[in-house]
Amino acid sequence: MAKELYQEDATTLARMLAQRQVTAEAVLRSCLARIAEREPQVQAWEFLDPEAALAQARSIDQGAQRGLLHGLPIGVKDLFDTFDMPTTYGSSIYTGQRPGADAACVAICRAQGAVMVGKTVTTEFATFKPGKTRNPHRTTQTPGGSSSGSAAAVADGMVPLAFASQTAASVIRPAAFCGVVGYKPSYGLINRAGVKALSDPLDTIGFLARSVDDVALFAAASNGERTAPDLTSSGTPRIALCQTHEWPHADEDTRAAFAHSEAALDKAGIPLRHLQLPLLFSQLLQVQKEVMAFDLARSLADERLRHPAQLSEGLSQLLAQGLLVSTDRHRANLQLAVSARAMIPSILGDADAMLAPSAIGEAPGAAQTGDPVFGRIWTLLGLPCVHLPFFRGHSGLPVGLQLIGRHGEDLALLRIARSLLPMLAAH
Amino acid sequence: MAKELYQEDATTLARMLAQRQVTAEAVLRSCLARIAEREPQVQAWEFLDPEAALAQARSIDQGAQRGLLHGLPIGVKDLFDTFDMPTTYGSSIYTGQRPGADAACVAICRAQGAVMVGKTVTTEFATFKPGKTRNPHRTTQTPGGSSSGSAAAVADGMVPLAFASQTAASVIRPAAFCGVVGYKPSYGLINRAGVKALSDPLDTIGFLARSVDDVALFAAASNGERTAPDLTSSGTPRIALCQTHEWPHADEDTRAAFAHSEAALDKAGIPLRHLQLPLLFSQLLQVQKEVMAFDLARSLADERLRHPAQLSEGLSQLLAQGLLVSTDRHRANLQLAVSARAMIPSILGDADAMLAPSAIGEAPGAAQTGDPVFGRIWTLLGLPCVHLPFFRGHSGLPVGLQLIGRHGEDLALLRIARSLLPMLAAH
Repeated sequence: MAKELYQEDATTLARMLAQRQVTAEAVLRSCLARIAEREPQVQAWEFLDPEAALAQARSIDQGAQRGLLHGLPIGVKDLFDTFDMPTTYGSSIYTGQRPGADAACVAICRAQGAVMVGKTVTTEFATFKPGKTRNPHRTTQTPGGSSSGSAAAVADGMVPLAFASQTAASVIRPAAFCGVVGYKPSYGLINRAGVKALSDPLDTIGFLARSVDDVALFAAASNGERTAPDLTSSGTPRIALCQTHEWPHADEDTRAAFAHSEAALDKAGIPLRHLQLPLLFSQLLQVQKEVMAFDLARSLADERLRHPAQLSEGLSQLLAQGLLVSTDRHRANLQLAVSARAMIPSILGDADAMLAPSAIGEAPGAAQTGDPVFGRIWTLLGLPCVHLPFFRGHSGLPVGLQLIGRHGEDLALLRIARSLLPMLAAH
Repeated sequence: MAKELYQEDATTLARMLAQRQVTAEAVLRSCLARIAEREPQVQAWEFLDPEAALAQARSIDQGAQRGLLHGLPIGVKDLFDTFDMPTTYGSSIYTGQRPGADAACVAICRAQGAVMVGKTVTTEFATFKPGKTRNPHRTTQTPGGSSSGSAAAVADGMVPLAFASQTAASVIRPAAFCGVVGYKPSYGLINRAGVKALSDPLDTIGFLARSVDDVALFAAASNGERTAPDLTSSGTPRIALCQTHEWPHADEDTRAAFAHSEAALDKAGIPLRHLQLPLLFSQLLQVQKEVMAFDLARSLADERLRHPAQLSEGLSQLLAQGLLVSTDRHRANLQLAVSARAMIPSILGDADAMLAPSAIGEAPGAAQTGDPVFGRIWTLLGLPCVHLPFFRGHSGLPVGLQLIGRHGEDLALLRIARSLLPMLAAH
C-alpha cells in the first residue's frame, strides 16, 4: 500500500518535488486533507487559510527550482512574524496583529521555495499557559509547549516541517511528548529577527520534523545554505550517558528509555561511559529560571504595563518574580553560565555527544504543558540538542532522549543523531 | 542670566521635577520652543506630535512621583518601536508603520515617568545612508549616524536625553560629531526587545545626553532600576592610552585631542601608560564588518526579498556582500571575537580603563555619516564605552575620545568617565 504524500518525510518530498514527480499543490492538498480530517481533535492551528497556501503552492509549481525547500509545506509557530498571516504570540493582546514583515527565517525559507501553510499554536508568549492544541497520540494529553501546534502538526502528518523555538525546553519537550525529532541548534546559529524576543541569552530558533535528515535540511535552509547537509557518518561516535542533576525528576518511563538506550547502543558496539556533571551544574536549573524571569519582566514590559488584565495569572506571577531579581544577581547568573560553558570541553573529554533525558516521562494531561526541567540547563549552556523519539512509555505514549553536542558543532551532532536513531529504535 | 529649562541637564531637571519646582509641562514647553526654533535647520525629528507629548507631560504632573525619569523629555531613535508613534526604521518600506507595542526600554522609561517627545531620525536601518538631520554646530556637516537625530537633538538642547543604538559605531560617532556624552553599555546589559534587530552579537542599546551623570541615570532607568547610580569615585583611576590598530585613520584633530588628553591627565596626576593591542586585534575591524554584513543579509531578509527597490544602493551592496560570507567563515569570525574578548583582562592589566579615539576627526559633510572605523572593534568585543566631548578640531567642531572599560563593569567605567571629564576639559 503506497504512502499518502502527507506521510512522507520532507527529504523524500524534496527529492520528488525537485524531480517534478509531484507538484507542490499535490503535496499541499494531501496535507490540507489530513488537516481537515484531524484538526477538530488536534487543534494545532492558530491561523489557516488553505486558499492562500494553495496560491503559494501553484506559484512555486509554475517557476523554476527555488531552493532547498522547493514546494515543502511548513507550519510557522505563531511566535514568528509573518507578513501575510496574523501573528498573536499566543496572547489576546495581539489578536489580529498584522506584522509588516516576515521573521528572517520565514522570509529565507520562502525564498528557498517553502509554502507557509499557516500559524501553529504557541502557548502565551511561549511560556506556560496551554493553548488549545492536544496531543495527537491521545487527545486528553498535552502536546507539550511552547511549540505545541508545531509538534502536534508534524506528529500528526499535517505538515512535514514546522518552526519552533526554545527559551526553556520549548523545542525538546513537545518533540518528546509528540514523538517527533526536535532540533535546538547551538545558541546564535539561526537568526532570530522577527521572532518575539523573550530572553536574549536563551531564545533559540528550533526545528521539528519526522527525521533527523529533515531537521538538518530545514535548519540549513533557514540559514540560507544552498546545499543540503551531508549527514553521512564516518566512524563510531563515543557517547556519554548523562543523567544530569535533575535525574530524580525522571519517571519510570524515562528511566526505562535510558536503560534501553544503554543496552541497545552497547549491543550496537557504541563506546559508552557514564558522565557525572560537576556540582556547579546543579545550580544551573535555578540560574536559568532567574535569567528567564528577569528578561521576561523586561521584554514584556509593554504588555505588563499597558495590558496587565490580558496576561494569565501564571505569567503575571512569573513577571513579578522577574522584577525581584536584581541586576547584580542577573549579572552573576550570566557569569555562572559563562563559567559552566567553559567547562564543557573538559567534561565531554573524548565523548562526541551526551545522551540525556528530554522530559520527565510521557505527556501529562492537557491542563498543563509539562515540566521543562530537562531542557533548561542545555538552553542556558547554548549547546545543540536533538530529541530522538524511539520509545513508548507505560501507557503507550512517545518517550525518547536528547543527544547534546558541543557548541557550534551542530553538523557533527546531527550526524551522530542520524546514526544512533536506528540503533535506539531496535528492540 | 538664568538658564532656560531646555539648557539644563537631565539630572538637574530630575531633581527640580521631583521637588515640584518645575512641572513636566514647563520643561517640555521649553524643549518644544527650542525645537520649533531650530528644527528647520537641524531636522532631528522623524515624527513629532507636540500636543500628544504635552498630554503625556500633563498626565505626569497630575500624578505622584513615577520613577527616575519623572517628567523628563526623551527623544526615541526611530529604530525603536513605539505604540503611540509611527516607526519607520529609517526606510520608506515602513512609512506609517504603527507597532503594537513599545520597545521594552521605552515602556520601562515611560513607567519611570519619562515623556516620549517624538521619534528621532535614524539612517536607513541604522546603516550608512544619511537621513535629513544636520549637525547643529554647523548645518553643512553630518551629525554622524546612525543615531543622527538623537545626537543632534541632545546637542542642540531639544531634549536632554535620547535613545541610541550601536551595531558598528552608531552611539559613539554621532556623540563625537555633535559633542555630547554617548554611552554604549556592555553587550547584553539593556534589553533589546522591540528594537529592530540587525546583528545579534553586535546590536547594543545606547544613551545620549549632555553629562555622564545623565547617561548613567538614563541607563539605570532603562534597566528598571529604582535608584539613581552613585557615580562618586573613590581613588585615582589608572588609564591606558590605546591608539588601536586603526590609528593611521586618525586625523590631526583626533591626534591633537589624544596628545592633549595625555598632557591634561598627567598634569592632573592620573597614572598613564600606553597600551599596544595584540596583533590579533588588527583582524577585528574586518571581522566586525563581516559579522555585521552576514547578519544584516539575514535580519533584513524580508526587506531584501520583498522590497529590493526600496533599499538604497549602498545597503543592497552591503547585503549582497553579507550573502557571500559563508556560515563557516561567520562561525570562525565569532570564535575569533570570543578569543579576543578572553584576552582583555590580561591586556588591561592593572589599568582601570582605556582611552581611545571615537572618530577620525571632526564631522565631515552631510553627504555621509562619517567612518565608523574607531567604533567597530569595541562593539564586537562587547565592552562598555563612553564618549567624552572635551575638545575642538581645527575648524571649531567638537572632537573627543572614548573611555572603554571591562565587560560588565559599567558603573566603574561611568565613575571614571565622570571624574576624568573635567580634567580633560581643562585647557
